Amino acid sequence: MLRVYGDIYSGNCYKIKLLLTQLGQAHEWVHMDILKKETHTPEFLAKNPNGRIPVLQLESGEFLAESNAIIHYLAEGSAFLPGERLPHAQVLQWMFFEQYSHEPYIATARYIVRYLGSPPHEQERLRQRMDPGYKALGVMEQHLTANPFFVGGRYSIADITLYAYTHVAHEGGFDLAAYPQVRAWLARVAAQPGYQSMDSFNAAITAA
Amino acid sequence: MLRVYGDIYSGNCYKIKLLLTQLGQAHEWVHMDILKKETHTPEFLAKNPNGRIPVLQLESGEFLAESNAIIHYLAEGSAFLPGERLPHAQVLQWMFFEQYSHEPYIATARYIVRYLGSPPHEQERLRQRMDPGYKALGVMEQHLTANPFFVGGRYSIADITLYAYTHVAHEGGFDLAAYPQVRAWLARVAAQPGYQSMDSFNAAITAA
Repeated sequence: MLRVYGDIYSGNCYKIKLLLTQLGQAHEWVHMDILKKETHTPEFLAKNPNGRIPVLQLESGEFLAESNAIIHYLAEGSAFLPGERLPHAQVLQWMFFEQYSHEPYIATARYIVRYLGSPPHEQERLRQRMDPGYKALGVMEQHLTANPFFVGGRYSIADITLYAYTHVAHEGGFDLAAYPQVRAWLARVAAQPGYQSMDSFNAAITAA
Repeated sequence: MLRVYGDIYSGNCYKIKLLLTQLGQAHEWVHMDILKKETHTPEFLAKNPNGRIPVLQLESGEFLAESNAIIHYLAEGSAFLPGERLPHAQVLQWMFFEQYSHEPYIATARYIVRYLGSPPHEQERLRQRMDPGYKALGVMEQHLTANPFFVGGRYSIADITLYAYTHVAHEGGFDLAAYPQVRAWLARVAAQPGYQSMDSFNAAITAA
């Protein structure tokens, strides 16, 4: 069975849980505590030398890292990843946008607030996340003004990728009031068949 | 004809020029001066709302952004991108690693030194690039100890992606002396058929 090493409240890990659930793909979830440095043990570094979650373990025993490479792998051949060349490339364009221009600001701000408790010595780093984070939200708002989803008019892993941290951006101090198209798109994603929230997944994982 | 908007001394743009050349794919190169803010004009923002180069213009007139999405698009169906599911995913894993854990440190340090002239007010930001940049080089060194190239034992766009800024890392102040596997791999990449350096491309672009 597929095995995922992750923390369901990490957007990068949630992406994978959401896609696996919407694909109806059985899998095992192994919780990793990043604050306890469980991703820096020799055992975990053998799985991902970069010391980051999520990591997917395939049935063959091989490991795959990087959240967006993992969901691209899982979505291949499904309705969540267009097969045609240009839409496929556009999905990847938004996935690279997310990792370069969105996640380092919006996810990092939330990490400082939610995981680290927003300590005084992190305030400057937190402040520096704001402008670039809002810039990324502005690029999304503009695109969504003319498009219901990021690529090809339909829900894909581009949406899952960007949803992961956008829907919890407020936990890092971002205010989406000025981004109505983003808010409407968040609601469209949450209305997709098989959608579950972080809290819903967490309840199931904790009960298991 | 394909058209690329870029700056050949930007590693993200060089990736595309190198792959197009190795594919033998005719294309037009439009130089963009980032210091003159040519990527922030309304005309350019209509091509890429995120205001970044490179941008690929397809023969249909459509635009594609994000260097790694562009080279994935161009390499599809060629020997530079494995078609089998797991190696394909491993190529993407290294491409996302590059944009998240490598480029923001190694490329940004070089940008501060080479493009901005390493001004006093940028020294703290430059200093902060060093540890994470060396960490990325360490992950590469470890992988290359057991592998001649990043995926499947052969040259692919994963190598092009990581070569782009690694081979000019010294321009940002990184010393590769302690990374012999990385240096040997750089030489293997530079020995590939059709390889050209940034300077060689620049001479051709300037003469055109």
